[in-house]
Amino acid sequence: MSTHRLLISCPDAHGLVAKVSQFIFEHQCNIKAAHHHLDEVNKRFFMRIEIQSNAFSRPIKDFKANFSMIADSYQMIWQLNDASVSKRILIMGSKSSHCVADLLHRGHESELAGNIVGVLSNHHKLAKLASWYDVPFKQVTIGVHTKLADMAKMTQAVIDFKPDVVVLARYMQIIPEALCQHFEGQIINIHHSFLPSFVGANPYQRAADRGVKLIGATCHYVTSHLDEGPIIEQEVVRVNHANSADDMKKMGQDVEKITLAKGLQYHLQDRVLICHNKTVVFN
Amino acid sequence: MSTHRLLISCPDAHGLVAKVSQFIFEHQCNIKAAHHHLDEVNKRFFMRIEIQSNAFSRPIKDFKANFSMIADSYQMIWQLNDASVSKRILIMGSKSSHCVADLLHRGHESELAGNIVGVLSNHHKLAKLASWYDVPFKQVTIGVHTKLADMAKMTQAVIDFKPDVVVLARYMQIIPEALCQHFEGQIINIHHSFLPSFVGANPYQRAADRGVKLIGATCHYVTSHLDEGPIIEQEVVRVNHANSADDMKKMGQDVEKITLAKGLQYHLQDRVLICHNKTVVFN
Amino acid sequence: MSTHRLLISCPDAHGLVAKVSQFIFEHQCNIKAAHHHLDEVNKRFFMRIEIQSNAFSRPIKDFKANFSMIADSYQMIWQLNDASVSKRILIMGSKSSHCVADLLHRGHESELAGNIVGVLSNHHKLAKLASWYDVPFKQVTIGVHTKLADMAKMTQAVIDFKPDVVVLARYMQIIPEALCQHFEGQIINIHHSFLPSFVGANPYQRAADRGVKLIGATCHYVTSHLDEGPIIEQEVVRVNHANSADDMKKMGQDVEKITLAKGLQYHLQDRVLICHNKTVVFN
Amino acid sequence: MSTHRLLISCPDAHGLVAKVSQFIFEHQCNIKAAHHHLDEVNKRFFMRIEIQSNAFSRPIKDFKANFSMIADSYQMIWQLNDASVSKRILIMGSKSSHCVADLLHRGHESELAGNIVGVLSNHHKLAKLASWYDVPFKQVTIGVHTKLADMAKMTQAVIDFKPDVVVLARYMQIIPEALCQHFEGQIINIHHSFLPSFVGANPYQRAADRGVKLIGATCHYVTSHLDEGPIIEQEVVRVNHANSADDMKKMGQDVEKITLAKGLQYHLQDRVLICHNKTVVFN
Repeated sequence: MSTHRLLISCPDAHGLVAKVSQFIFEHQCNIKAAHHHLDEVNKRFFMRIEIQSNAFSRPIKDFKANFSMIADSYQMIWQLNDASVSKRILIMGSKSSHCVADLLHRGHESELAGNIVGVLSNHHKLAKLASWYDVPFKQVTIGVHTKLADMAKMTQAVIDFKPDVVVLARYMQIIPEALCQHFEGQIINIHHSFLPSFVGANPYQRAADRGVKLIGATCHYVTSHLDEGPIIEQEVVRVNHANSADDMKKMGQDVEKITLAKGLQYHLQDRVLICHNKTVVFN
Repeated sequence: MSTHRLLISCPDAHGLVAKVSQFIFEHQCNIKAAHHHLDEVNKRFFMRIEIQSNAFSRPIKDFKANFSMIADSYQMIWQLNDASVSKRILIMGSKSSHCVADLLHRGHESELAGNIVGVLSNHHKLAKLASWYDVPFKQVTIGVHTKLADMAKMTQAVIDFKPDVVVLARYMQIIPEALCQHFEGQIINIHHSFLPSFVGANPYQRAADRGVKLIGATCHYVTSHLDEGPIIEQEVVRVNHANSADDMKKMGQDVEKITLAKGLQYHLQDRVLICHNKTVVFN
Repeated sequence: MSTHRLLISCPDAHGLVAKVSQFIFEHQCNIKAAHHHLDEVNKRFFMRIEIQSNAFSRPIKDFKANFSMIADSYQMIWQLNDASVSKRILIMGSKSSHCVADLLHRGHESELAGNIVGVLSNHHKLAKLASWYDVPFKQVTIGVHTKLADMAKMTQAVIDFKPDVVVLARYMQIIPEALCQHFEGQIINIHHSFLPSFVGANPYQRAADRGVKLIGATCHYVTSHLDEGPIIEQEVVRVNHANSADDMKKMGQDVEKITLAKGLQYHLQDRVLICHNKTVVFN
Repeated sequence: MSTHRLLISCPDAHGLVAKVSQFIFEHQCNIKAAHHHLDEVNKRFFMRIEIQSNAFSRPIKDFKANFSMIADSYQMIWQLNDASVSKRILIMGSKSSHCVADLLHRGHESELAGNIVGVLSNHHKLAKLASWYDVPFKQVTIGVHTKLADMAKMTQAVIDFKPDVVVLARYMQIIPEALCQHFEGQIINIHHSFLPSFVGANPYQRAADRGVKLIGATCHYVTSHLDEGPIIEQEVVRVNHANSADDMKKMGQDVEKITLAKGLQYHLQDRVLICHNKTVVFN
């Protein structure tokens, strides 16, 4: 028995679910789970279907070829992913290790629906951690005066890892627009605030200055607009007047790592579809 | 345009979704939203489909008649509810007013997907509140030595209200088994603890004695086993050493009323299916 | 036995706690509870002490007179409040009733550490609700072209109620600066977003547009800077892609009313001290 | 400048705070932070005071000697801990690595107010992880038929590590009563349920069977009564019908590690006092 995940996004139309489920049935496959969502504002329909097939099913190649005809007629954006094929994860980090260590440990314990293929950093600090977990480490320093060239090197390094998903685990550098566009919907960032509060730098200090009673973290896709990409997951934790900005930073680290791991896992399991600047998360 | 909600529970079978969605399509109806769940332990499939039909659709009577044939062949337990028909809600309370007042206010503001048709209580205290909201109030006192006869009167009173759903809003009396069975899956209780912690009486006192750091409330269907029916919704709130049992009672009241309102709303919107002693909540 | 609450804010100094607690001891009073906080950024010290005294204690008038000498020498801002004296609460509302109804019910059930003396509104809608709870209702319409004069009338109406605390329970009008200043630290607002996200109008629509995964509410003191006053309490609730702006508004109402009631109660119990634009909440 | 933490528990008495704060003042020390709690049920008073002293202060030895006289007269249980002296942490684990890895990483990043001196396990699996973090690893296998002798070896191993606190990071073996008593109030366990729900084995399976909507974890001191010791911290996470017992186990692991780390940190910072079977946590 093999499992595939069919993801569909298309303009709303009459009989969509019937058409797709009938198609799956006719190809001797079974629907194990299905999620639908109609975005009433944009009149777009979203579907995620887990399809089970066995040796007696018609080959998945046929399935794909045949389905593309339906897809075209409904103007679908779609993908069919084999659940047994691990996505290649590239982690990009800087000096902070809490998110990177947490992801590496999850990878090592086979908890991620993907395979960490490398850690790329502008600092050397994470090298030892990566080597502990037998994950290739690559450093590309980003200099103040050599930023353009360094970013090009970094971009090449990303490409060389052939990632299916790039995780910015507190990378702290702004990603070049070309890279954002090339890996559109495939770069995931953790921002250390509850967006849209405290976009940009030093969110914990600003949270402390503002006297908020909850701080948070936001896992989102990266676009060329800083901290404004589609949000996948958010979480908060309670703070009080006795917590300094530094306390908040420490408390926030737990929220960051949990939120990033959760958002990444949704992505790896093909649970996230993007609709303009928002996400549909079928969980 | 009218909306119906089709709820299905049946043994898992090949082609179920295709069959049902094809049927809906053939009856010129549209699927507005759909949720599926396969209980892998019990090999049962659950579906909730919001169906939109218009004046040109074939009459819903035909739909029902034709669908019953499919339903039979798949051994479905099913219902088709017209979303425009308000469910009749009977609230049963005692002396505590927080849940009753909250529900009455929601009813008054048309926030509930149902219509509160009465308040039934063993005490007089809630009479004024009910009259404020123009909701019929009925008192059936439950005496210590006349319990059997009083419970029979109460049971008759419940039946007279012709409720679709009975809400025990801190009613504090054990419901007779016959009544539980007659309204199976239609009586909703709010228990003032995070079940299965603190089943039975005085949960806040026992929570304070145990020194827990979170207290909670549980909204569940009533069965003849006290506090053991299928759970619909649960919520918690943080407490600390400075909170007495009495503080916890006050803090818990907010959790109780929110959790009850949430669980009731899910029920009213036909989002809850029961599977043995558990619920599937499509929200 | 009577209970007083001593609130102190002053520049940090050596021996403060010893001085104050020695003073209390010498006046034959007992410390029932005490909270301290040192704001390390502003080098300010905050204290809240619950003091128990009995018939044999020296009169509280003496206590006050004598304490003012210590207070002066340490440049203290301080107050000594008799816990048995209820604060006078004025609720200001508009068309939304969820917060007002919730507060009125809490007042009616004696759950608030204060006494609701009136409901003031620019619309008539809340009149019936107030009369149900036997609370005086006053309407001051705010016209588009008569705003200045109407605001003056409203200001007079507020003053006439002689409130100790004014609660903006979704009042939806900007409070004149003079009123803000006159009742500095005594006007509490509930903003229907997780500040500093979505300052200003239509936060639920903007939250839906941004695709956030949590929405919230913020209870804060009102200053002349819109939605920027010291935050007392914040709370959030999870939302997802299926929730429209209208759903969020409904879900948010529960968060608003709970958060407002919690923040107000802290204020009524003298648990909140203001430090620049932040609060110290001793709870 | 050095910081000490004075922890006091004693029968409630008149003038306690005055006496203690006056004493601190007279010893030329300053109160940086203070927390009080009166347990009204047990009429016991609890205090935690952070004391700052400098080179000009009278030696801490004098402080201790003099304070013991006050302490005796008030029947205090007390301790005075130098904040600069790291507590020795012994981690005991088994096969699950999530909590152990999380603690080791926090230790490595100097986030814990203590020093991890060893990992003790009945299995070999954690050896590599410990060696990565340069922490001594010791294995004491617990055989089914040699349990008594093996437990004695394990007990000796614990003693040999000279721990100030023993952390059962999913150790999965019942600790001998003698060890519990010897290290009373110094052994911290993480139980993978929201106690008192699901005491004992397989809590995730039982949570799934019961159909709860929230699962949790409990960090508590170990006593000879299984899962019934004083609770330090609890946390929950939302689950739904689609989550299997295995999903819950994975989701719960994040809650376990965060809750354990939080509870341990409170202990390391001398924020926890025990009162019968409950804790006072000054945070």
